[in-house]
Order: sequence, then C-alpha cells, then structure tokens
Amino acid sequence: MERRTDLAVEERELLGEDIKGIEYTSEKVEGLPIERLRILTKRAAQLLKKPMGHYVTVELPPLTDSIRDTDSRVQALSEEIRRLLPVNGLVLVAGLGNVEITPDALGPKAASKVLATRHIRGEVARSTGLDRLRAVAVVNTGVTGQTGIETGELLQGVIKNIRPSAMIAVDALASRRLERLGCTVQISDTGISPGAGVGNRRVRIDSDTMGIPVIAIGVPTVVDAVTLAFDLLEIDDEKESVELSRSVSPQGRSMVVTPKEVDLLIDRAAHLISLSVNMALQTDIDTEDLLDLL
Amino acid sequence: MERRTDLAVEERELLGEDIKGIEYTSEKVEGLPIERLRILTKRAAQLLKKPMGHYVTVELPPLTDSIRDTDSRVQALSEEIRRLLPVNGLVLVAGLGNVEITPDALGPKAASKVLATRHIRGEVARSTGLDRLRAVAVVNTGVTGQTGIETGELLQGVIKNIRPSAMIAVDALASRRLERLGCTVQISDTGISPGAGVGNRRVRIDSDTMGIPVIAIGVPTVVDAVTLAFDLLEIDDEKESVELSRSVSPQGRSMVVTPKEVDLLIDRAAHLISLSVNMALQTDIDTEDLLDLL
Amino acid sequence: MERRTDLAVEERELLGEDIKGIEYTSEKVEGLPIERLRILTKRAAQLLKKPMGHYVTVELPPLTDSIRDTDSRVQALSEEIRRLLPVNGLVLVAGLGNVEITPDALGPKAASKVLATRHIRGEVARSTGLDRLRAVAVVNTGVTGQTGIETGELLQGVIKNIRPSAMIAVDALASRRLERLGCTVQISDTGISPGAGVGNRRVRIDSDTMGIPVIAIGVPTVVDAVTLAFDLLEIDDEKESVELSRSVSPQGRSMVVTPKEVDLLIDRAAHLISLSVNMALQTDIDTEDLLDLL
Amino acid sequence: MERRTDLAVEERELLGEDIKGIEYTSEKVEGLPIERLRILTKRAAQLLKKPMGHYVTVELPPLTDSIRDTDSRVQALSEEIRRLLPVNGLVLVAGLGNVEITPDALGPKAASKVLATRHIRGEVARSTGLDRLRAVAVVNTGVTGQTGIETGELLQGVIKNIRPSAMIAVDALASRRLERLGCTVQISDTGISPGAGVGNRRVRIDSDTMGIPVIAIGVPTVVDAVTLAFDLLEIDDEKESVELSRSVSPQGRSMVVTPKEVDLLIDRAAHLISLSVNMALQTDIDTEDLLDLL
Repeated sequence: MERRTDLAVEERELLGEDIKGIEYTSEKVEGLPIERLRILTKRAAQLLKKPMGHYVTVELPPLTDSIRDTDSRVQALSEEIRRLLPVNGLVLVAGLGNVEITPDALGPKAASKVLATRHIRGEVARSTGLDRLRAVAVVNTGVTGQTGIETGELLQGVIKNIRPSAMIAVDALASRRLERLGCTVQISDTGISPGAGVGNRRVRIDSDTMGIPVIAIGVPTVVDAVTLAFDLLEIDDEKESVELSRSVSPQGRSMVVTPKEVDLLIDRAAHLISLSVNMALQTDIDTEDLLDLL
Repeated sequence: MERRTDLAVEERELLGEDIKGIEYTSEKVEGLPIERLRILTKRAAQLLKKPMGHYVTVELPPLTDSIRDTDSRVQALSEEIRRLLPVNGLVLVAGLGNVEITPDALGPKAASKVLATRHIRGEVARSTGLDRLRAVAVVNTGVTGQTGIETGELLQGVIKNIRPSAMIAVDALASRRLERLGCTVQISDTGISPGAGVGNRRVRIDSDTMGIPVIAIGVPTVVDAVTLAFDLLEIDDEKESVELSRSVSPQGRSMVVTPKEVDLLIDRAAHLISLSVNMALQTDIDTEDLLDLL
Repeated sequence: MERRTDLAVEERELLGEDIKGIEYTSEKVEGLPIERLRILTKRAAQLLKKPMGHYVTVELPPLTDSIRDTDSRVQALSEEIRRLLPVNGLVLVAGLGNVEITPDALGPKAASKVLATRHIRGEVARSTGLDRLRAVAVVNTGVTGQTGIETGELLQGVIKNIRPSAMIAVDALASRRLERLGCTVQISDTGISPGAGVGNRRVRIDSDTMGIPVIAIGVPTVVDAVTLAFDLLEIDDEKESVELSRSVSPQGRSMVVTPKEVDLLIDRAAHLISLSVNMALQTDIDTEDLLDLL
Repeated sequence: MERRTDLAVEERELLGEDIKGIEYTSEKVEGLPIERLRILTKRAAQLLKKPMGHYVTVELPPLTDSIRDTDSRVQALSEEIRRLLPVNGLVLVAGLGNVEITPDALGPKAASKVLATRHIRGEVARSTGLDRLRAVAVVNTGVTGQTGIETGELLQGVIKNIRPSAMIAVDALASRRLERLGCTVQISDTGISPGAGVGNRRVRIDSDTMGIPVIAIGVPTVVDAVTLAFDLLEIDDEKESVELSRSVSPQGRSMVVTPKEVDLLIDRAAHLISLSVNMALQTDIDTEDLLDLL
C-alpha cells in the first residue's frame, strides 16, 4: 500500500535526505549529473528499503536529444559501470524482463546488443585480433510465466556451468517521478531485490544467491499508477489508501504511467545501456573498432 | 486544460446524464452490455463536445477472459457495425495511428487483418465461389509525422480513385476510466474528430470531408495522465489545473496510463475488431468459411 | 561436399531404400501420411548418417490449406509426440535457433507458445483446477553467436537445476526436397546431431550428453542451395562438386532455398508444433479448456 | 519460362555485351564500382527487356563489411540518386512490397526511415531552421493482396492530391547472380516494370502512368530458384525447361534463393538506401545535422 520506487535516491528524497548511515555526493561528469549514494548501515538499509551498497544514478538528457555513439557522455556512463566490475575474468550479462511487454522489455533488448565473446577463442581469435576481447556471455532469462523457471534459478544453473567472475543484470525499473522515465540510469552493486523491476521480480538476485558480484543496471520506464495517485493526493491515511488503490487498479489490473512513445524510450535506453556496457567490458579495443564489431 | 475522453457516454456521465437533445438506451445482447446514445441537437453536440449522430458503446468482458472466434458475442458486435453500413457497395477500411507506438497501434493492427477483396474478380473469383465476397479495400494511413501527409488528405486521394460507398475508420481512443481500457468498443457514424484518438488526429475525417459515410470504430487504450490527475483531485480551479498539468506532463511530454500488459490489450482488441468488421462486411458467407479465409 | 538433409527418410531414399538394419512402415492416420523409420544397427546408422533410434515423419497438408486448432490432424500429430514421452514427470521444452533469422526461428517461435506450468503450484493451482496440468518448463537457448554459450552447455545447466524427466527440443531443419518445406514434421528420440538444423548446431544434444531422453521435433524450412544444385546436376564427381559449391556459395556465404513467403511458413509450422506439443503434454485436460489457456 | 533478372546489367551480360543502341561505361567512385548503362533505342529496349533510359548499378562491399553513416561511399551512392532528381520541388518516396515477407520488405523498411518533411512549415520551421529542408512525403503502398488496391492506383491517388515534382520508388529485386544479393544497388529513371520486384509488381509505375519522373531504387534480395536451376543446367530447350520449372516450383509455389541471414541483408540494405536517399534529398543541411534528425 506504499509509494513504489526502485531508485535509492528517490527513497532518500521521501525520507527527507537527513538520514544517518548513508553517504551522498553529487557531481557533473561530461555534463551529466551523477549522484552517488552509499548505504552503510543495516538501519539505513531498512529505512531506504534497499540493501547496503553503492547506488550510482546518472541523469541522461531528455528523450528528444540525440546522443551519438561516440558521445563523451556514453563514455562517462561506461566509466561508472566499469568501476563496479572486477578487472579480469568472464562476465555474464543477463537481460531480465519480458520482451513481449513493451515497458518490461528493456533488459532483453539491451542484453541482445551486448557483444558475446566467450566462444571466440584459439587461433582464429588470435589471427583476427579478437583475442583482445574480454570474455562475455549473454543470456535473456525470460520471465517465470513463460518459462516456469524462476529467473534466479535459471541464472544459478548458467553460473554453475560457465563460472563467470561477475554478472551484470539489466532490468526495467519503476520510479516515482515522471520526468525520470527513460532519462535516469541506476547502477548498483547490490543486485536485484524482490519486488523490483517493472515485472516485480520475485526472488533476490545478488552476490549471496548467485555467489558472484552482481551489478544491476536499470532505467525507470514506468511510474506505478497507484504511486502517482498517492503522490498527487498526498495520502497517508491507511483507509483512504486502500480505496484509492482499488480505484486505480480496477479488477486488480496493475496500471502504469508512461510517455505515449514508450517504444522509443525503451529503444533509446536499451541502445545507450548496451553501448556503455560494451565499452565498460571491452577496454583493450578502440571505441571505433568496438562500434564496427557491434 | 480539461478532462479528455473520446467516448460520448463518458461525456454524458460528466454532464450529469440529464441532458436535452439526446436519446439514450441500454440493453444486454448475448450477455454484452450495449449503450446507444444519439445526439439530436446542435446544443447537445456542443455540450458533449461530439458531433450529432449515433454512438454505440459495447462493453467487452475483461482482458483475462478468452473469447473464441465463433463466440456469439463477436456476432453481436459485428451486428452493431453492420447496422451503420450501407447494404451494398465497396467499403474502404482505414487503420489510423502509428504501428510503432504500442498504445496507438490499434488501427493499423486491426486493419491489417481485415480481408481485402476488391482485387478478387472475374472468372477465378466465380469458379472459387469468392464472388460472393463484398468488395473491400484496406489502407493503413500511417501518421503525418512519418508520411508528411495529413491522414484526411491521404484518404481523400484514395477515395477519389477507388470510389467506395462508405469508409470504416479504426483508431485507438483515450477514455477517462481505467476499467474501460481494452474493454469498451465505441462505434459511431460521426467519423473522427480533431483531437480524438491516442495520437490526437488533427483533421476531421467524416462524411463532410470524405464525401461518403464514415463509421468510426475505436477502443480506449489509454487514460491521459492529466485527466486521471484531475479526476483524482476533483480539480475545477483554473490556476490549480495549470500547475497540475505541468507536473504530470514534465517538459511537455504527454503521459498516459495503461495496463502494464498494453501489448496484449492491443492484440486482443485488434483481433476482436478485425473479426467483427470482417463478419459485418461479409454476410453472404458462413462464419466457418470466413474464418478459413482469414 | 555432400547433399545435406536432416530427414532420416530422405537419407533412406538416397540410399535406395533396400538397407539392412532398419525397419520402415508407412500408414495414413486421420488422412495424414505417416512414415515410421527405425535404425536398429550401428552399420545402418553409419549409412544413414543418423543415430540409432526412432524417426517418425508426418506429412502435413500444403501451406495453402488451413488447419483448425481442433482438427483431428493436430490430434494425430500430438499422439506421435506423446508416444515418445515418459508418462510422468517434468518436461523441459527447448526452442533452438535464432529468432532474428527467419528460416532459423522455428524453435524459439514454437517454444514461446508452449504452456509453461512448472511454477503453478499449491493452493491456487488446486482451487483453479490447474493442478491437473503436467509440469512443463520452457527455455529459448538463443544461439552461441549471441550468447557466447554452447546450446548444449546452457541446457545442461538448466537440467542440473530443475531435473526434468525428459526434454523436447524444437529446431528448424534442412531437407533435400523443396516440396517438404513447411509440410513435413520429423519427430525422433535421438536428439539433435552436430551439423543438423538450419543454424548447423555444433554439439550433440541427446540422452548421452543431457542425461535424460531427448525428443527432437523439426520441420524443414530450407533446402541448402548446394544440395539443390548437386541434385539438379546429379553430380558425383569430387572435382566438379568443389567448383559447384563455390559458385553456389559466393564468398563462402551459405545460400538457402525457401518459398518466398518463408515468414508465413515459419508461423504456421510454429503454431502447429506448439499446439501438438501442448496436447501431447497436457492429457488430463479437455482440448477446449487447453485452447482457452493458450 | 526464362531466366529472370531485374538488373539491366545482367540482361546485358546474358546477351553478350555487344549490343547496338546502348551506352555502357564503368568506373570506381570512392572505391565503389559503378556501372552506367543507357538504353537508347526501342530495339535495344526490346532485347534487354527493359525500358529506354538510364540504369546506374553500384556495387556495395560484402555484407560482412561495416559501413559507417558518414562513410564517403554512402555519399557516392547519394550522389548517383541526386543526379536523377529534379533540383526543386516536393518529392514523394514510395516503399513498395510486403513488410511481412522478409525478402520483399526492403521497400517499406527503407521508406520508413526516410525523413518526411512536407508537414513541417511556417513559423516553427523557420525558427528551428527546419525551413532549409526540402519537402518530402513518404508512403508505404502495401501490396494488392492486403489492400485490394493496385500499387499504381494508390500512388496515382496520392500524387493527384499532393502534386509532387518527382517520385522515388524503392523495391526489392530479383537478380541472376547470388553474389549480388544485398550488395548491388540499381538506380534508374525508368520506373518499375510489370513482373519486376520480388513480389512481381503487376502494373507499370513510371512517368507515363504517374505523370511525373519516377526514379526506381532497388537491391536484389533473391535469386529465383528456377533461374538458378536454368543457369546451373545451361538449359535452352523448351521442353526440358518446363519440366525443370515444375520440379523447382512444387505445387506452383515460387521458390527463391537467399543467404540464410536474409533478415540482416534486408536491414543493412534498407539502412543504406534510406541514408543515401535522405542525403540526396536534403542538400542544404550538414550530414551531421541530418543524422541528428534521423
């Protein structure tokens, strides 16, 4: 019955910003506003309803602006991802979400454009210079309703078999503020929590359950309609909130607020994320050469 | 700065139902609630912000219910369309909207499944029994931003060349009430008004501008976020409403409320409409034979 | 440098039909021609270049014929699949191939429409009657070029984690004869061999490598252009064949022959296979109730 | 019963290159091989089975090569298109073909990425500098089987209404040689002939029927299987050819040869054509600014 957000910085805003047990700084890099939030104590984690760890929030230009592949802002974004990654070793990139439901399709759309390289080996790789590429594997997990398998369960099976040193999980998020839709990227080292994502992932996907570091990258693509209504009406009363929830979720159908052109939003965000993930992973190759491979 | 709805019955609800110059009846046909609204006077048309004419509103079962192609409810829906059509002559079916923007894709998706028959003629048609089919032409108009051509202008060109006796225009609508999304069909003989549809069509498409009867068929696929906010806050004050509009349309981006599974909603609605349009048009052929042709 | 076919019955045709170590019968069931081929000896397996086991080949009506979901021919097809399945236990359905390459998209397109039920359990399942459904899990493996993971490796990981009693693997095939494209289904209990499928799968996926029975279901969607050329020219000479291969594979690009409307072929075949797999798996539920769930 | 090709240069090759009434030159521009063929007499037109006029054939690098948007080769291609266009006035760009049939989808896919500007006018255009853009309108005609309207008929209606000074028609072609698939662009001022294109367009679309210059741009996406068979077997005998046609077109289904990755071929070709059409049309704007608009 609460306002719902997957962004740590929005939880902080809700709480009044003056919270013990967190570190918070903000700066501009290449013109991009970047906020760094670190949750240091269990108490703060409880208050913010987010696990302890780092949360980096990068604000992209509005949708109408075009960003070239070689833009220094993409470089800045990739730099933030790189910082949370181990320096060496195979990385598994997982696209979470349902590709057939537009606002939930960010994960699979972004992962599909990440360069898989784990299978490029041996003499051929050496002679073509592709042995400079870092080993990367990519999976789209699908969603439990379509596979009958929990996302975490599927990923555990893959991890057991290919033994990556870290995982990057890409997922669509819900935020509280409409202006963030498609324009904010949250990067964290805390994985995916239950209830997070547009599709309400059910099982925790983090270093505890996966056995390796899990970097989560997400972009808000929807505002939950109930959350918008609560915010508009500034509701706190328990009884009122039940009634309002009912009216904004007729027959229990979950309603979301998105820009009309949600398809374009998803496509742009997926492109930017795949690009910066590729750059963060492949550091021994020129940007130009990397773009040629994609 | 007003609540926005493309449904005549919702304008009536807003006005308090006790309006002069309209006829209103409701009934159940094959289990489907059907409302018939007729606007008889210019004064009533002004009040309801809709042209004079007939508006038939059919309430479909919720999305979770499955409807078979041979369901008597599809027959009932097709019967409502048939009543507004001329008995004979070529019919042009036009899909309005942008197929690349999910909530606006209803028109092109529905029109794509309507059986085009105008080109099936002569000896071949006779020998295969297809000469029983009524002549139908189908166009997807695209949207002005992609074509550089006003929808109405494009349709006028087509109509001049193929001279149909009537047009059916299918379009996605905006309603006020979330529970209607994907579950209500409005059929009218008054065409498409400026500002109507999810894409805010700009030019009137009706019997005056097209020179032939225009039957409009629409299903609400979104609630405008500003309209939802106004309704939730029961706002009437001019100044308040300007501020609210701004906060719900950040940077002027138009926000809409939809079910998360908007893609399924569009697919189901497009299927039901194409099916009932086909049945309404092809009356000299068995339902089973018609389904085989589709 | 040889004629390529994934169909056991075509290998038999090539060899002259009079081979020791095989059993072969043919019959018509519900109007569908069905051939049953069993390879009994290692010697015969070597000759036919296919593993020992059962191969059932069902000939569907041509593409232009429409088949209803409730058609007795779909029932006959599902019956052939059912015979090769264990009676009880979880079944994993795997879609093999690249959904972005039309002639290779059969596997993922068919698997996407198979009903996943493994996650439907407990009180909810019991109260809705869904506890009658057999447990089914579904994965789309993607292709190694996109994932960096061998298909077999990925499936082993999944199997280790969810422990199914059998797997059904759906894949697009290459045949020798154009008239078979989209019209023949091969069902076998021998899994997928290296080099088979449109995408030339590289690693054996069978009961030996997976540890459980593997039922392979495939439909030919292409004829290899080199194979067609060899057949047309009746080439046997080694030197001639090298030159011909080169001319039909310019710059080493692999060329295939398909009907122009290959997209429709894939969609129809994927629909028929998913339908018959669903019927083969869910035997404790009416066809009508099953169709409502899909 | 003949070898089929939509490329004038291939007809010339078939005839032995020593033909009266044609002019032929070839050169390299920015590394791209360009052939210029002009048919000057009715007799030559009859021999080559192509109308009198100019045919420019540009050979692109193979599919595996990546071409950047700013590549000088794209500029060279756009220059060839520009030469055949009138200097001023509205241009209509028409995508011919069926977007749902992969090898026929080139036209609609390319046209969808051409910048429509005809509707951008007045004060807004002036203040944003968009008044420098040449007026362009874009239509996708669909195919007669889906619309019931002949492509030419539809275009005549549009032309009557918006009165462009020229039309560019983009269409998928059939060639004789496999190595050309996706790698050759033919630009001509003679429009589209009956029987041309992958979908076998039925009505002439040229300056005679449309009343304005028609520039046709096409890329071969298939080799007709019958043509390949004839070429392989070097068949000339009438009787033999009938039998062969039958065996390569089972049940009259038209078979085509394409690279397996036909989807990528179409996407790359559509991208290159839309890019060079945009550059050919918008000459008063920098390439960089143009790319930002797309």
